[in-house]
Amino acid sequence: MNLDPLFSPKSVAVIGASRDEASVGHAVLKNLFLGGFKGKIYPVNPKAREIEGMICHPSLAAIPGPVDLAVVIVKAPLVPEVVDQCGQKGVKGIVVISSGFKETGEEGRLLEEAVKRQARLHNLPLIGPNCLGILNTDPAVRMNATFAKEMPAAGSIAFLSQSGALCTAVLEYAKSEGIGFSKIISMGNKAGLDEVDLLIGLRDDPQTKVILLYLEDLADGRRFIEVAREITGDEKKGKPVLAIKSGRTPEGAKAVSSHTGSLAGSDEVYDALFAQAGVMRVDSVEELFATARAFSEQPLPAGRRVAIVTNAGGPGIMATDSCIRQGLTLPALEAGTVAKLKTALPPTASTRNPVDLVGDAREDRYAASLGAVLEDPNVDSLIALATPQAMTDLEAIARVIGQAAKGTRKPVLACFMGVTDVSNGSRILREERVPHYRFPEAAVRALARMSQYREWLERPRTMVKRFRVDEAAAKVLIRKARLEGRVWLDQAESLAMMEAYGLPVPPFAIARSPEEVRRAAEKTGFPLAMKILSPDVLHKVDVGGVRLGIPDTAAAEKTFSEILDTVRLRQPDARLDGVLIQKMVPPGTEMILGLKRDRQFGPLLLFGLGGIYVEVFKDVTFRLAPVRELGAERMVKSLRSFRILQGFRGQPPADLPKLIECIERVSQLAVDLEEIEELDINPLIAYAEGKGAAAADVRILLRKE
Amino acid sequence: MNLDPLFSPKSVAVIGASRDEASVGHAVLKNLFLGGFKGKIYPVNPKAREIEGMICHPSLAAIPGPVDLAVVIVKAPLVPEVVDQCGQKGVKGIVVISSGFKETGEEGRLLEEAVKRQARLHNLPLIGPNCLGILNTDPAVRMNATFAKEMPAAGSIAFLSQSGALCTAVLEYAKSEGIGFSKIISMGNKAGLDEVDLLIGLRDDPQTKVILLYLEDLADGRRFIEVAREITGDEKKGKPVLAIKSGRTPEGAKAVSSHTGSLAGSDEVYDALFAQAGVMRVDSVEELFATARAFSEQPLPAGRRVAIVTNAGGPGIMATDSCIRQGLTLPALEAGTVAKLKTALPPTASTRNPVDLVGDAREDRYAASLGAVLEDPNVDSLIALATPQAMTDLEAIARVIGQAAKGTRKPVLACFMGVTDVSNGSRILREERVPHYRFPEAAVRALARMSQYREWLERPRTMVKRFRVDEAAAKVLIRKARLEGRVWLDQAESLAMMEAYGLPVPPFAIARSPEEVRRAAEKTGFPLAMKILSPDVLHKVDVGGVRLGIPDTAAAEKTFSEILDTVRLRQPDARLDGVLIQKMVPPGTEMILGLKRDRQFGPLLLFGLGGIYVEVFKDVTFRLAPVRELGAERMVKSLRSFRILQGFRGQPPADLPKLIECIERVSQLAVDLEEIEELDINPLIAYAEGKGAAAADVRILLRKE
Repeated sequence: MNLDPLFSPKSVAVIGASRDEASVGHAVLKNLFLGGFKGKIYPVNPKAREIEGMICHPSLAAIPGPVDLAVVIVKAPLVPEVVDQCGQKGVKGIVVISSGFKETGEEGRLLEEAVKRQARLHNLPLIGPNCLGILNTDPAVRMNATFAKEMPAAGSIAFLSQSGALCTAVLEYAKSEGIGFSKIISMGNKAGLDEVDLLIGLRDDPQTKVILLYLEDLADGRRFIEVAREITGDEKKGKPVLAIKSGRTPEGAKAVSSHTGSLAGSDEVYDALFAQAGVMRVDSVEELFATARAFSEQPLPAGRRVAIVTNAGGPGIMATDSCIRQGLTLPALEAGTVAKLKTALPPTASTRNPVDLVGDAREDRYAASLGAVLEDPNVDSLIALATPQAMTDLEAIARVIGQAAKGTRKPVLACFMGVTDVSNGSRILREERVPHYRFPEAAVRALARMSQYREWLERPRTMVKRFRVDEAAAKVLIRKARLEGRVWLDQAESLAMMEAYGLPVPPFAIARSPEEVRRAAEKTGFPLAMKILSPDVLHKVDVGGVRLGIPDTAAAEKTFSEILDTVRLRQPDARLDGVLIQKMVPPGTEMILGLKRDRQFGPLLLFGLGGIYVEVFKDVTFRLAPVRELGAERMVKSLRSFRILQGFRGQPPADLPKLIECIERVSQLAVDLEEIEELDINPLIAYAEGKGAAAADVRILLRKE
Repeated sequence: MNLDPLFSPKSVAVIGASRDEASVGHAVLKNLFLGGFKGKIYPVNPKAREIEGMICHPSLAAIPGPVDLAVVIVKAPLVPEVVDQCGQKGVKGIVVISSGFKETGEEGRLLEEAVKRQARLHNLPLIGPNCLGILNTDPAVRMNATFAKEMPAAGSIAFLSQSGALCTAVLEYAKSEGIGFSKIISMGNKAGLDEVDLLIGLRDDPQTKVILLYLEDLADGRRFIEVAREITGDEKKGKPVLAIKSGRTPEGAKAVSSHTGSLAGSDEVYDALFAQAGVMRVDSVEELFATARAFSEQPLPAGRRVAIVTNAGGPGIMATDSCIRQGLTLPALEAGTVAKLKTALPPTASTRNPVDLVGDAREDRYAASLGAVLEDPNVDSLIALATPQAMTDLEAIARVIGQAAKGTRKPVLACFMGVTDVSNGSRILREERVPHYRFPEAAVRALARMSQYREWLERPRTMVKRFRVDEAAAKVLIRKARLEGRVWLDQAESLAMMEAYGLPVPPFAIARSPEEVRRAAEKTGFPLAMKILSPDVLHKVDVGGVRLGIPDTAAAEKTFSEILDTVRLRQPDARLDGVLIQKMVPPGTEMILGLKRDRQFGPLLLFGLGGIYVEVFKDVTFRLAPVRELGAERMVKSLRSFRILQGFRGQPPADLPKLIECIERVSQLAVDLEEIEELDINPLIAYAEGKGAAAADVRILLRKE
């Protein structure tokens, strides 16, 4: 997507420009003009001759020269027609600011469809409707095509928002915080371009170093992953993407048919999606910008080791606490560094990390210690903390910090505790491009995100594996259930499906008569679990349909008859297809592996701790299928209970490669067999290294036809 | 503790007042003078005649009139002598600002001891040394006895800090945020008064409505609980206390002897202590003040039901998300309220909670809807959100919000998205005493804290129970181990100790000969667990000392010999005291109940999920013993795994009263038997309602003598 016609037009027509100073049509025109737009501005309004000293054109067609961009502010019902006129005029891009579309109900939705049709007809890139507009600070363009009150400073942060109101709030906030932008794009109803199209544009935008998103939904989750992953993941040109996704839903109390289904609330889908795309999700606007600032102004740290230099003990401890909470570490400094610090600092100072320069520290102590600490090979990044004490000259210290940051390739962040006032050194920090925070928590959080992004860039690249499986056999099983009008596969079918996809299923067989029991048991081995096979029995245990721990053939034959008799007695109308005979599996660590087809995003994989704790601790992780090998590995390693799988308190480590393979095989199944709606392997029992795993119980639900 | 002599003195001597404008002695004097102190100021310095126009006295004794408060800034070695002089002069309180005491090493520590001795000798309340000073904004006093740069505005928030530097940062921050204080107290090294003494003073201070603490340690945890609990818990005069406790330690990798020991890192002690004291712990200075402001300016909500009124959808969703994350709810509005809103608002508005007034909303829409929503009986509190859009007049809206807040007893908080600029309505909100936040998260967090505090005030009051136990028997067990020079009780002794304190122990007996096995088993019943009893065997399983599931007497007799033979073979030098015979307990939910005597705070109780997940999920909670009945109940109910105990997925609910009783009994044991250092009941098996529990395995460690 080439966004140039939209963001770097040579001429803009403001269709619906107005003389009424309280109107949006006036505000947009004025912003373009006052913002210093470098191209031509054509106001369009049949009822006006002149607005703010500019000649007004009665229609788009009446404009003498070519028009690159049309900004549309006319009433909603007129918009489809205007888009058509734009097409005829040869306009190259449209921003529809007007509201009154699908956000207002059915009538508006139809209007919006008409707008879409017209845009598609003329192959016109369109932003909106129902948006604040777009804004490009590039000095060669300087286009404020919004009705916001301010033109922000130029910078390297692009902000892409599904809420126009949030854009105005962000502009207000950015002004006071001195945050600069490359572009601000209010996406509105996304009738034409959506976040993915715009992301592609920002990928190629030389002014943009960091991309921020505010999303309420995603048009196409899979395309989003693909594109965002490419943008975030490029080792050389990668740009960090930070996102707020609002509209987290409380977990569904709705009836669900599987563990996977009940755990996969829509919000988890977004977590999965962002993780796979390398997009960092944050919860608040403040965190979004605090972090963006660090990304835009400082280099990435090589690792998680943070040094803190402070003029006060208490705040140093607070910063340390915060580092530990955020998964960063405070390394010990090298002996050489400590020696340098000892020379430069008074004896009351602490030369260990966090380095405490003591309350009467002036800029010279900062200069000496920042230099020494930044040269320490144990240190990946530095937070320079200062509290405004009696002797503290924050301006001088700010200059020293700026100097230190210039002389290193490690990120340097500053925290002047409690300081808001720009006169107090924070203006100097802004000029020096050292991000400044009022309290240490925000600085630490930004560093943690930077480390996380560095790790994402440096992750090993793996591919989606294809296993040789018996897809045909799996399809036969589905067809059979379909023919019988069932959406649930029975136990035997579910296990057979697992076998077809190479998942580790304990030996099983079906016995339809007492004579078949012996043969079945010979195949599986003892001890046995025996379960009634019936499409009509939902709760097997309740009707006496399950018996465990059967030690030998004689007992098995007897149990076979007992099961059939009991079930017949308790549920006389049930069709009985025989008894499933399985070798009982030894105990191990109970995991869960599942699949749920999300209505919008497709197959979602779940992996986590199984058994009775699954819904209490929700120690599970999600990914959209297909997963790469590394993705499957990350699913396993991101669990809290990974500690158990690693071997713990005398337990041997689990067979991790097998668990990863199981995830990859279910991923392949999810992609191959679109008719499977939900699948639960619970428990998937993990055994010790080299001993594999066992899919002990499997439930498979097909999509309703 | 009457703090009047310290905080409302009629006269202050500044001992070490100085003409050097860069000195602390100058800064304090100037602050007292410029701050508008209502009493007399006496500079004391033998080398000066006059400072800043004030007559300087050569010594304390030379001051003609009485002196209530002495502020001491002389060099550390002179301080003990000065304190003595204060005593002789009849001074009523001292603040030692001078540093150079225990924070600098051994020499300083000795000096500090001397200061302490002198203060005690003269029975003088003393704050410091090594502090910023103290500050009282009460218009009748107006005392700034600190060397900070600013006198803050008067307000109802008291700030008590163990870090002087943090006080300066807070003053700086408060200035820009318009936060007022009643008192600021920099505690320094706490050689005289500590946080508990000062809390008592603030309890009785009519100017103080909210108390904020910054702590790095606590002098006396039990007294802290007692005093803070009284301050926070009083239904009529209760004052909320919010605390930052810094110096969270990463969990100990150190060798520990029990689960309880390994889980009870020092930070958990503080969590327990704050929970018991009703003190709300926060992690950042920003949260501390954002929350304090709401407490100081608005009434407490009756419950957790929040209404949101907004002029923009996106920010409304963000606020809703935040409410759900913080455990607040968004109630449905009553039909009557919706009807009122429908009349007042345009058809595009949303009349459901969050109420969306739409982007062009002016103050009239806010006025109508705030009134209607606040009258709704389903609503406990309100957040008024506004984004600065084209038509938005934030000043007018601020006035309307102020009006609405005045007309209700429900708390009203405002969030003008992104707005920092005081001209934009936030000044008006300050005047109207409606707390203002730039983004919704902080407002929601404050409301959540207010709800939490309301619940604390309204909690049922219970007492510490005393059970009839056999304390004498327990002491005999301890004496026996002591006589044998052991710190570990053996299994039989540990179980007997549990019996003595009425904890549910499965039947057990000791067999020393094959003949005794039969009698023992008759007492306990089958199936049996049999375990070697030996003070020398640490890992019983490793030497073949444990056998489970023994079905009958014959097998038991055989097993008895086998155990003895195997252990003799594998550990020939071990003293063997026989075999412990226990009836095996049926499976249930495995919990852990433990006790660890904290070096500083005394007995710490632990309760949580047991078994192999205990250290992975750390689903445990702590309290200092003794616990009240409600405290024990809260320990059970605060667990994530409480869902399992409540009955879950077909499992029956657990015997909660029995679990609570077990906690209370261990609490009593902790108080009675000071020699017990650590105790682990793991697992404590919880059975279904009415079926009790079983202390299946117990380890008890005595304090080293």
